[in-house]
Amino acid sequence: MKIKVLKNILSANDQRAQENHELFDGHKICAINITASPGAGKTSTIMAAIRALKGEIGIGVIEGDISSSIDAEAVSKEGIPAVQINTGGACHLDATMLSNAFDSLPLAEIDLLFIENVGNLICPASFALGEHKKVLIASVPEGDDKPYKYPVMFNQSDLVILNKIDLLPYVKFDRQRFIDAVRGLNKNATIIEISCTTGEGIERWLEWLATTIDDSRE
Amino acid sequence: MKIKVLKNILSANDQRAQENHELFDGHKICAINITASPGAGKTSTIMAAIRALKGEIGIGVIEGDISSSIDAEAVSKEGIPAVQINTGGACHLDATMLSNAFDSLPLAEIDLLFIENVGNLICPASFALGEHKKVLIASVPEGDDKPYKYPVMFNQSDLVILNKIDLLPYVKFDRQRFIDAVRGLNKNATIIEISCTTGEGIERWLEWLATTIDDSRE
Repeated sequence: MKIKVLKNILSANDQRAQENHELFDGHKICAINITASPGAGKTSTIMAAIRALKGEIGIGVIEGDISSSIDAEAVSKEGIPAVQINTGGACHLDATMLSNAFDSLPLAEIDLLFIENVGNLICPASFALGEHKKVLIASVPEGDDKPYKYPVMFNQSDLVILNKIDLLPYVKFDRQRFIDAVRGLNKNATIIEISCTTGEGIERWLEWLATTIDDSRE
Repeated sequence: MKIKVLKNILSANDQRAQENHELFDGHKICAINITASPGAGKTSTIMAAIRALKGEIGIGVIEGDISSSIDAEAVSKEGIPAVQINTGGACHLDATMLSNAFDSLPLAEIDLLFIENVGNLICPASFALGEHKKVLIASVPEGDDKPYKYPVMFNQSDLVILNKIDLLPYVKFDRQRFIDAVRGLNKNATIIEISCTTGEGIERWLEWLATTIDDSRE
């Protein structure tokens, strides 16, 4: 008797994430999953891209928060379609929550979809959404030791943004220690240093987005 | 037929938390559960108390992190008994993890036990540990809107510490908006503003600890 070994059985979430991914590709949407600690600057980093790129490409935003619609309101003021998902306590977005938001977005007009995950450096790591790339935003005041403490998220990310570099003169933060820690966990991630307050480094974030959109269409 | 309505059935975690609480009371230990975002300053705030109080009272520390022993090493350098719990991916401490650490601490010599939870403003809210008080540490660079986004943790806390007030001149942060948001969720919490860098406000943190230790013995 031959025993059939089943491999790559997708969990319900992974199955749904794959469907989301196919829908994105069908609409030529490049989807970016943005994760961070609370207050690291997810919305500010998205807003910097929106201000530079709106008019040139179609942008959409899905905002994940336990509660409140502060972020979706900020995005909407820029004239960008935005949907707020309130998780009602859940510590991450999952692929089904995401797919429930699609009906509220003009998918045919969107080239670049930002998915702002719940502020949490742990749980979002376990839930694929169907995105093309994962971005982790760390920030200078959080300290240079965060990669050691939250290794899974740093390991999974395609891009690590270090935000709030304008605060480097005022806090203890060893840039090299941070970079070495990220590299120790993830040899392939791009690392970009920015300040949403001064605009420093935003150019590199925009370049990364342009390349990522191109790659997603190949 | 009479239907019996069962109330207050304790979950396995709540049951264990109650046992922990009884053990603390049996040893006259005041246990403080400290929660925060990654990098808000949990360890620094604990260290400020350790430096001021060691020699006067017996202190112990339990450090919760997904990975690494950076924080427990920092505490041990001060000559304070410290146990590191690595949750191995889990996003919070629970009452059983905590009780497993007791064997490694000189309980009879401890008056004040700091339990530093995993850096996460969401999941630790759902797991009682048996503590006497819950402290939430927020920090200025995270922004004044955090209570709106993480309401459950703010609602449950006995003390809300706003750390990193030395950075107020360099970031957009409306103190009154933050305080109003906390008050809207939690009328009874004490709010203390501190800077672990300059030492401002640490006196009030120490006073709160002294009162809390006294109360736990009544």
